[in-house]
Parts: sequence; structure tokens; C-alpha cells
Amino acid sequence: MLVFLFCFWGCFGLAKPDDVPASWIKPGATVIYGAHGLLSVNEQQQKNKPEEGLQQNDKIICLAGVANNMVKNTERWIHSQRHRKWDFHSLKLQPLSPVPSDIEISRAQCPKAVDVLAKEIGLLTDEIEIYGQTKAKVRLSLLERLKDQPDGKYVLVAGITPTPLGEGKSTVTVGLVQALTAHLNINSFACLRQPSQGPTFGVKGGAAGGGYAQVIPMEEFNLHLTGDIHAITAANNLLAAAIDARILHENTQSDKSLYNRLVPVVNGVRGFSPIQLARLRRLGINKTDPGTLTEEEISKFARLDIDPSTITWQRVVDTNDRFLRKITVGQAATEKGFARQAQFDIAVASEIMAILALTTSLQDMKERLGRVVVANDKKGEPVTAEDLGVTGALAVLMKDAIKPTLMQTLEGTPVFVHAGPFANIAHGSSSVLADKIALKLVGEKGFVVTEAGFGADIGMEKFFNIKCRASGLVPSVVVLVATVRALKMHGGGPNVTAGAPLKKEYTEENLQLVADGCCNLQKQIQITQLFGVPVVVALNVFKTDSPAEIDLVCKIAKESGAFDAVPCNHWSAGGRGAIKLAQAVEKAVNQKNNFKYLYNLELPIVEKIRTIAQKVYGAQDIELSPAAQSQVDRYTQQGFGNLPICMAKTHLSLSHQPERKGVPTGFILPISDVRASIGAGFIYPLVGTMSTMPGLPTRSCFYDIDLDPVTEEVKGLF
Amino acid sequence: MLVFLFCFWGCFGLAKPDDVPASWIKPGATVIYGAHGLLSVNEQQQKNKPEEGLQQNDKIICLAGVANNMVKNTERWIHSQRHRKWDFHSLKLQPLSPVPSDIEISRAQCPKAVDVLAKEIGLLTDEIEIYGQTKAKVRLSLLERLKDQPDGKYVLVAGITPTPLGEGKSTVTVGLVQALTAHLNINSFACLRQPSQGPTFGVKGGAAGGGYAQVIPMEEFNLHLTGDIHAITAANNLLAAAIDARILHENTQSDKSLYNRLVPVVNGVRGFSPIQLARLRRLGINKTDPGTLTEEEISKFARLDIDPSTITWQRVVDTNDRFLRKITVGQAATEKGFARQAQFDIAVASEIMAILALTTSLQDMKERLGRVVVANDKKGEPVTAEDLGVTGALAVLMKDAIKPTLMQTLEGTPVFVHAGPFANIAHGSSSVLADKIALKLVGEKGFVVTEAGFGADIGMEKFFNIKCRASGLVPSVVVLVATVRALKMHGGGPNVTAGAPLKKEYTEENLQLVADGCCNLQKQIQITQLFGVPVVVALNVFKTDSPAEIDLVCKIAKESGAFDAVPCNHWSAGGRGAIKLAQAVEKAVNQKNNFKYLYNLELPIVEKIRTIAQKVYGAQDIELSPAAQSQVDRYTQQGFGNLPICMAKTHLSLSHQPERKGVPTGFILPISDVRASIGAGFIYPLVGTMSTMPGLPTRSCFYDIDLDPVTEEVKGLF
Repeated sequence: MLVFLFCFWGCFGLAKPDDVPASWIKPGATVIYGAHGLLSVNEQQQKNKPEEGLQQNDKIICLAGVANNMVKNTERWIHSQRHRKWDFHSLKLQPLSPVPSDIEISRAQCPKAVDVLAKEIGLLTDEIEIYGQTKAKVRLSLLERLKDQPDGKYVLVAGITPTPLGEGKSTVTVGLVQALTAHLNINSFACLRQPSQGPTFGVKGGAAGGGYAQVIPMEEFNLHLTGDIHAITAANNLLAAAIDARILHENTQSDKSLYNRLVPVVNGVRGFSPIQLARLRRLGINKTDPGTLTEEEISKFARLDIDPSTITWQRVVDTNDRFLRKITVGQAATEKGFARQAQFDIAVASEIMAILALTTSLQDMKERLGRVVVANDKKGEPVTAEDLGVTGALAVLMKDAIKPTLMQTLEGTPVFVHAGPFANIAHGSSSVLADKIALKLVGEKGFVVTEAGFGADIGMEKFFNIKCRASGLVPSVVVLVATVRALKMHGGGPNVTAGAPLKKEYTEENLQLVADGCCNLQKQIQITQLFGVPVVVALNVFKTDSPAEIDLVCKIAKESGAFDAVPCNHWSAGGRGAIKLAQAVEKAVNQKNNFKYLYNLELPIVEKIRTIAQKVYGAQDIELSPAAQSQVDRYTQQGFGNLPICMAKTHLSLSHQPERKGVPTGFILPISDVRASIGAGFIYPLVGTMSTMPGLPTRSCFYDIDLDPVTEEVKGLF
Repeated sequence: MLVFLFCFWGCFGLAKPDDVPASWIKPGATVIYGAHGLLSVNEQQQKNKPEEGLQQNDKIICLAGVANNMVKNTERWIHSQRHRKWDFHSLKLQPLSPVPSDIEISRAQCPKAVDVLAKEIGLLTDEIEIYGQTKAKVRLSLLERLKDQPDGKYVLVAGITPTPLGEGKSTVTVGLVQALTAHLNINSFACLRQPSQGPTFGVKGGAAGGGYAQVIPMEEFNLHLTGDIHAITAANNLLAAAIDARILHENTQSDKSLYNRLVPVVNGVRGFSPIQLARLRRLGINKTDPGTLTEEEISKFARLDIDPSTITWQRVVDTNDRFLRKITVGQAATEKGFARQAQFDIAVASEIMAILALTTSLQDMKERLGRVVVANDKKGEPVTAEDLGVTGALAVLMKDAIKPTLMQTLEGTPVFVHAGPFANIAHGSSSVLADKIALKLVGEKGFVVTEAGFGADIGMEKFFNIKCRASGLVPSVVVLVATVRALKMHGGGPNVTAGAPLKKEYTEENLQLVADGCCNLQKQIQITQLFGVPVVVALNVFKTDSPAEIDLVCKIAKESGAFDAVPCNHWSAGGRGAIKLAQAVEKAVNQKNNFKYLYNLELPIVEKIRTIAQKVYGAQDIELSPAAQSQVDRYTQQGFGNLPICMAKTHLSLSHQPERKGVPTGFILPISDVRASIGAGFIYPLVGTMSTMPGLPTRSCFYDIDLDPVTEEVKGLF
């Protein structure tokens, strides 16, 4: 008798093999003890004592001590050789009608243990770091292991110009992967943004999808997650503190005293740290002995000479705190009168969030963090995080945040949640790394579905011109989400505002409004076609939509150049409600794909802005304020002219005026200011003012949020 | 043939039982498939298909579907019945000489996987939540499971009045448990504070111990950990944002408008949320229908009428950011002129940190959070977090932070890291919950070693009068840490300052200075005896200490009433260097123990302060400023007079003057102000000014900190 016992003894209260009653193993058996992959050397040594209680003629082969590496290597080999079809088991859904609240649906489903999910989709034991039962970080080493495997298909979910209520891009993204994997048995992955925790307690609206197309557990998704936003906050604020502290120290010390403190004698030895040596090299000072610098060199090295009026690096918190929108810092006596005006932004507006979303490796992230420009010096030259000596510390704070977090949908299909930069002052997409890892995991025939914030005019344009440039990935198809509600608004329907009940135009059939509003859908289809990618329209169906309205939208969409247009019912039916969409997407990827960027990076900044404004928004022209023009000149002179453009414009209109619905024409797009995120790698022109710190309303969500101290259940979160 | 396979298939690349080659299982075998404890329902369903490839006459019993609960119940039963002696395997240490840097020592040791450690010490699979390979949160449910088991011995590590460099309490704590468990084979647990991340990047000094007595991996210990401090920051700042937003909304709306917003009509229905109903009850309004409140009742309900000048709740960040010590908030136009002066504290100074450290359950934490007083209203009545409606949201943000984090020492013995309140404006000890859980896990004959910040006059006094009151736990013995260095300082040696080299008095033998300085040790022993607990002096040996100096200290200590006094070499030798200390502690717990608190809570606030000042510090008397006296009167009138006292005093002297070393006498302790942490449950008198926000020096640690992008190793952290 030969039996392999690769055992996880503890699950039956058995701490080690010699706890196995002798009666369980009959004479004559050959038992090979293996080790659970995570056992330590000491645990394994203990496992080498299974002889007690066994019969004389038993053959016991104890592999435990050696097994660990062998297990890993074998596992690695088997997986790397294997066809990528997942050995996957979906969670059953039994949708109720009427559809219960999001939190009720989420709680009614028992998620798979995340290590089980990880194994199903081909992740190795040493490629995941588990955070509780339902979340795991995935190591970037996977990209190296699977580097020779072909990528899957890359699907972008974008939308038409939305109402302030949003039209359900996240829900479509989740519904689509549920349909693909749980119903059509095709490997697929959703890549989503991590939402800011601030609004969770302010105005309602989770970002985990909704109804029967959700990421679960939703409370984990919406709170803390695996701490990435907290890490960003810590890194962002360390840099901010370093700026003000440096200005203070420079203002209150002589060159010599500064230099002696920056390069101190430690245990009798005086030396530059590596980051200080790098700064010396940038300054053209090729010396390594601190004693040999001239007075001029000492001054050059020790003084960053930051011009406080040019500081663009702000502090952040992940809380809706409107009183931090404009503040004065440094008013304590210890700061010796160097008070200045500043602000806090919401954490997800940090450039470090945009860096996290665009980076392709640890090395690349470190370089981007070092390149961050925080201010100009008094000569107008950029001052960077690297100049402040803080690059390594920022990378250390971000070392775990760079790993995407694995979660699952209601039907047990895999989801990456990673990064969530603002969609106006940044590019509004989840991370390049999550997409890249997912594309390897799904295999050549699989699908990765990701989304771009706001309407296609903003989110998709940035996705292509900024994110795809950073990743080098080519999208296979765009899913353009539309709703009858938003189309009616574009057709001239009354205002839609959050909190107020919808007018009857939106709850009763009105084919004329729909037909008129389809101009916006048509324009967004055309925008997609500018990039040469096939487009499938997904009509996110609400219960008040009539069959005639639905048919009309699909008909117009197809006439306007969409490869297909299908109604979807994932919100009420889960993946089953998005099967037609999944099938349409599956067909569309076989269409001809002529993906191209909209502009060359070598064009002058103003030309790039004009191209976007005219070709995408339909503007007649652009008009730069003097401040904007002077910033353009400065960035160009500083050598940042070849970066892509990240427009900070309202998402509620194709134009800069939120009240202009449909397809506005003849407008001149005003550029009030131009800023730059050099570390993330884009220039962002401001079209009007952008709020980077939300507030709490009179009745915030927190009135309804509670924790049951016995069951530990979260209540009222959504 | 009967074999039970409780398998963890994946460790050999096998995703499920039907991947087992038929040849592995011979005809006639009865195989019972069980499930890994973490498998989901769906995974288990899949496991119900092992028939393929088996022989006709095999008997297959598939328990997987039912097994999960059975496994857990059986495991629970077995463990709850078992003797608590751990099935424990220590990690071998081979100390080098000279002792390498802390990070080198930490990195040279390979920690056990945390799930292995958890199993060794009797934790069940469903009682831990793993965070990566080396950290796990432990669920509070364990306290219920083991409630009938006797506690272990409770050992407090305190210290004499330290130099600014610290005398090694954390190191002694870690060394002691390494000796107890890895060398004497006695169950023991260290309970440590989580350090603030701010100073990690400012001035050197980790809190993971040092040398060969450390918690590993030290970079995990010192960065993010499991996110508790980030959760505290989020909760603290949500409350702060809610205060200012509420003031703004009350200032800009009529009673009616406020009320309509606070109690809106949702889907045609208008109702109070539970937290609003609770407020109505507190106001004496016994109504539940929003339509029935009188105008007066509406005004009473809707207006908190916060007096902005009385706000004591500050925002926090876990960054050394001196420019946030005094700021003006609310200067944006959207805040309509309601700017006010405020400040940010370092996150660990938040009252929520003190609450986390003192709470005994989820229910208790929620109640404490609700009781937090943030300001007074214009009538002088306290305004609480509960009044602001934010209690439930704060509890939700803190729901994971309440669970202690399990880590390990260099020798693989268990450590809880949990909470780290300030030792001046708060009580400076790790959490009650970590201690309680550890006391159950070690069993009746085991030891839990925890520490109190600062010298015994502050840390130990608060530990006994505040923490032990909250927990109801009785300490068995106090370990009082002394160093020859600190004693020489008390004997009249020159100043010791961080960063500067030590004077020769400290590096050469000087018996007179030692003898003279022992007055401080003697006094701290006497303070310990006030509480009726036996004391063992641990002399933390430095390589410059002479044998005569060491003997002298031990002799004087024993003459002064210590049960024993032993030199320890854990820093250079690991647990082996603290074996004598461990043996002394083991004997001391059998001494008579007459533990008592220093004062009755029913005494007036001023009397409690006087008792501490006179009996502990040796002051002649106390003197309250008019502001302090008026605060005492206010708190007494508000009903908070029966809380314990948490003195905010310098730790560098028994008196309020840091330069007065040894045992100062004849001084009058000045109380400049009196504040309160009502949620945490103490009054804190200020003896001089206390900084609650550290700064970054000219050359911050971050210059040396770096991340290797290939190996992912952190460099230069300590």
C-alpha cells in the first residue's frame, strides 16, 4: 500500500503527524509525510518523528525536511507547463426580486477562501500574500515567471457622458466577467480601482459594482482594503513634511552648519549617503570625500533654495474634510515665523496614487517617485523628491502597495483591486501592473476587463494616451456603457440631481428624448473609433426602461458604427444577465484592430491640448490664460514638453460647461492653468477649477453606519 | 485499509482530489476525503468527485461538504481540553561578536510562518487572520473559548529614570521571553506597543528591541504593520471633519432646514436613524415620529451648538510634520469665513489609540468611542462623538484594529504587537486585549511579559492605576530595568545627549558615580513596593560596564528591597543572556503579592494628583494654575471627577524639571493645565508643555533608507 499524505494536520486538531492514532494506519502501509508549503524548518524537524505507534513492518519515508523546496519547484514547473484553462468553480447565484440592497446581497454570498481562488487561477503558493480570508496581495514575481506566455484580450469599459448619478461602468465590468467566467467558462479578470474611503462616510456610493454584479465582501473592498491608500498617504505626507522642514532648516542655518548636519561624523567617519552622492553627481560635483568640497560646492549641495510660493506638493488625508481645503501651516513658535498657505487634498488625488497606477515595476516606481517635482528653486529650476533625499524612504513605504489585491465577484470570479487615481487631475484608471498580471493569468484566450473613469471623452482618451503608453498594452475592444436615463438627459430631459427623485420623463417611456439623446452615444462611438478599436455598446437596463426604448438605443448604436449593441441585466440577474454582452465582446475581439494614439508626444504641449479639445471634445479651439501659457513655457523649458496630456475637465459635458448636454459645438475650451505630475508622467491642464477635497454633507452616511459588536457585521454601509 | 486524507492538495500542484493519479490509490482502500479548513462551499463541491480513476471495489467516503464545521468543532474541542503546554520549536540563534546592526541580525534569521507559530501556541485556524507570511491578527473569540482557563503570570517591565537614549525596556522584555520559552521551555508571550511610523523616518530608533533580542521581521514591525495606526488616523480624522462640518452646517442653516436635512424623506418615508433616536432619548424627547417634534425640540435635536473655542479634538497624521503643530483651517471660500486655529498631532497621540489600548471588547470600544468628548457646547455641556452621530462609523473603521497582531522574536517565541499610546498625554502601555489573550494562551504556568513606557514613576504608576483598573488584571512581578549608564548620570555624571559621543565617565569604571546614582534605583524600587508587587532588578549590561560596577548595582538593589537583581546580556547573546533573569522572575512570582491601587477613584481630582505627586514623585506639594483649577472644576461638575489620573510629565526626572537627576526633593509640582480623555477614561494634568508632534531634523533617517528593487530588501531602516 502506497499513500502520500501531504497533510494539513491542524485542521483536525492534530498539531503534527505523531498525533495520528496508530489505529488509523494499518500494518504494511508505506506512508510518505510531506509538509504544508508554509512550514518552517523547526516545524518540519518536529514532523520527522512519526514512528511512534506504527507497526514494525511499516515503511515510513519522511520527506518533510526536504519537501518545502521540492514542493515549490515542482508546483512551479507543473504550472508553468500547464495549459492556462482554469480549473475554476463559480459560486452559485440565485437572484431575488425585487433586488435587495447591495450590502444584503454581498452578505448573503459566502466568498471562496482567497487561497483557493488563487490556486484555481494558477497562482503559486509563494506568489500570494494573504490578508485575512478574502484578500491577498499578488507578487510581481509572477510577471517574470510567465513572461513568455501570451497575453489575453484586453477590454476597456468606458461610458457615454453620464448623469451625476453615474451610469454603471463598474457594474458592467463586474457583470461582464461574471458572464464570461461563471457562465461561458472563459478565463476572465476584472481590474478595478480602489475607492477612496472618504466618500464612503460622506455621500453614498460604493465602487464595488452593485446589485448582483459586485465585488465581495463589499465592506472589505470599501474600507482600508490592504492598506494601499494608507501607504500612499504616509509617503505623500513624508515628502510634504520634508519640504517644509528643509525650508526651515535652510532658513535658520549657515551653509557650514547645514552641511555639518547633513553630512555628520558618525563613529569618527564622515561620508555621503548614496542619495547624497547622486545629488552631487547631478550638480556636476564629482567628489566622494566630504572634506574636499569647496565653499561654493558646499552651498550648492546643502541648499535646495526652494521658493515657497512655487510649492505644488500638498498634504493628503483619506477623509472628506472640507476645512482643510485652504489652511495656513507653520504657525507655532517653533517654526519661527515661516508660516505659509497650503491645502490638504483627498489621498487619492496624490501624485503617488497616479504613480502607483502607471508604474511597471519596483525599479520604475522608485524612479518615478524620485522624479516627482515638488516646487521650483529660486532660480526657477525644478526641485525633486530625489533632491530632498527621500526617494528610498518613499519606495520603502510603498513596497507592499505596489502588489495588486486579489478579490472576487459575487460569482467567485477573480478581481484585482489596485490604485484609484482621480479621473480629472489624474488619469482615472486602475493599475498597469494589475492589468499586466491579469493578462498573463487569463492566458491567450482569456479576457481582462478594466474600466476608465468618467465618459469616454475623458477616461478612455486618457486610458489610451496615458495608461496604454505607460504599459505598452494594446486594447482589443471597448465596451461603451449607456443608459436610457442618460440618453434622455442628453435629448433634452430635465436636470438629474443626486438625492432628488427622478422626473417622470425618466420613469415613463419617451422615445423622442431617447432618439434625440443618442447624439451623445454616437459622438462617443466616434471618439472610440479615433483610436481604431472596435466598440460594443452595453445598454445598462433599468427596470423603468421600455422594450421600445431599449431596441431604439441598440439600433442607433449599430447604425453609428458600433460592432454590436446589447442590453444587459447583470444588476438584477448577475452574470447571466450579461451573457449576450460577453458573447458580443468575444466576437468583437476578432475584428480588425488598428489601435493608435491620438497624438505624438513630440508635439508642443499646446498642440496636444488642442488636438484633444478639437478631435475628442468637439471644441472649435482652445484659449490659454496667461498663467497657463507661462506654465506651458516653463515646463517646456524645464524639459517636460514631451509628456502626454491629462485634461482636468468636467465629466458632465463634452464641453467645459456641465450644463451643456448632448454634443455641444462651437465652444472655445478655456485653459485656466497648467500643472504637471512629473513622477506620474503627465501635464494636466485645468479647464475650470477642480475640487480635490470633498466635504461632508449635513446628513453624512455615517449616521446610518454601525457595527454589530456581537456578529461583527457592518450595517448601513451602502 | 482505512486512511484519512485531510489534504492540502495544492502543495504538490494538485488542485483537487481527482488530480490524484489512480495508481496512487490501490484497490480496496477506503479513502475519506476531508477539506482544508479554509475551503469554500464550491471548492468542496468540486472535491466531491474523486471517483474517476479509482477501482470498482474502493469505498470512497466524501466528507468534504460536511467536514468544515466538524473539523472546526473537533479542533475546538480537542484544544479546549488539552493541557496548555505548547508544542513549541524555537529558532536557533548563533550570536556573532561584535554584534551586527539590528537590521542585519533581523534579516539573518528566517522567521517561522505565522500560521505555524499560531498552531504551536494553541490558536485555532479560525482564530487567526493572516497578513502575509509573518503577521496575523488574532480574533477576540478566543477569549470566549478559553474563558474558563486560568490566566498565566503577568509580568511588567518598567525602568529607572532613563537617559534620553533609553535604557532598553523593550530589549529586556524580548530577551526575557526568549529566555523563558526558547531556553527554559516555559510558555511565554511578550506584549509590545506598535511604534509610530513618524519617528522611523525622522530620528533613529526602532521599538522592536535590539541586538539579539528583537521582534522580526523588524521592517514589518516598524512599517504599516497590519494597519492599526492607519485605522486610528482614519477614525480620528473622520471625527475631526465631522465637528467642523457640523459647525459650518449649523451656522449656515435655519433650524427647519437643518432638521429637514438631518432627517430627510427617503422613498416617501421619514425616520430617525438609531443613533438619532438615542440622542433624542438623551435629550429627554421620547418621540420616534419626526413629524411630531415641537419647534423647540427640533432646535434642541438639530443644534449641537458647539463652542469652537472649546474644541479639544485635533486631527492626526503618522508623520513627523512640525509645520502642522499650529495651523489655521477653513480658509477656503467654501467654508464661508469660519476659519479657526487648530493643530495636527502625531497619530499615536490620538485618544482613539488610548481607547484601543484600554478597551476590553468590541462593545466596550464602541461605547468608549461614543463617550469621547470633543468640545463643549455654548452652555458648557460636553459634546460627544455620539452626539455627532459618528460612533458606529468609528467602530466600523476600528473593527480590525481591535485584534492584536501576532509576530515572533528572533528565537521564534510569540509576541503580540498592539496599540501604542503616548506615555505622557496617555498611559503608554500596549493593549489590555493583547495581555488578556496572551494570558490565556500561555496557560496557568506561563508568563506574559509587557512593558510600560518611561520610568516606573510614570509608566508603571499609570500601568497599575489606569491599565490594570481597566483590565482587572493583577500583576505578579515587576522587572525594573537599570543601566550603569543611567545610574552614573543620576550619580552626577555629565549630560547624556542623543547624537553626541558619550563622555569618558560612561565608558570607564567609576564606582562612586554608580553608588551615588543608585538612589534613583532605590526610589523606583520603593515606588514599586507602594503597589505591593515583588520587584526584580534587571541590569541591562553594556560592554563598557565593569564587573565591579555590575556587582555593586546588584548588591544595592537587593539591599533596597528588590527580590533579586541580575545582570542580563540578551542584547549580545539573545535569550541565553537573560536566563538568570528568567529564573529570578520565575521565583519571584511565588512571593507574596499584595497588589493595590495607589488611590481611590472617589477622591477629588486634585487629591488624586497630589497623592501621585507626593507618594510617587516625592514632591512637597502641587500647585494648580487658575486654568487648571477651572478645568478641574468643570470636569468635576460634568461628572468626570471619578476617573483615574494620567500625569503628563517629563520622563527624564522624577520631578518636572528634566535636569534634576537622582531623587529630587522639596519641589512643588506645577500643574499648568488639566485635560480629559473621557472615551479612554482618564483626566490628564499637564506638568509643563507636552509636544504632541515631533519634527524632522536637518538630516533625517530617510537619507539612509532605501529599497533594493530586485531583492525587495529594505536598507538602512535602523
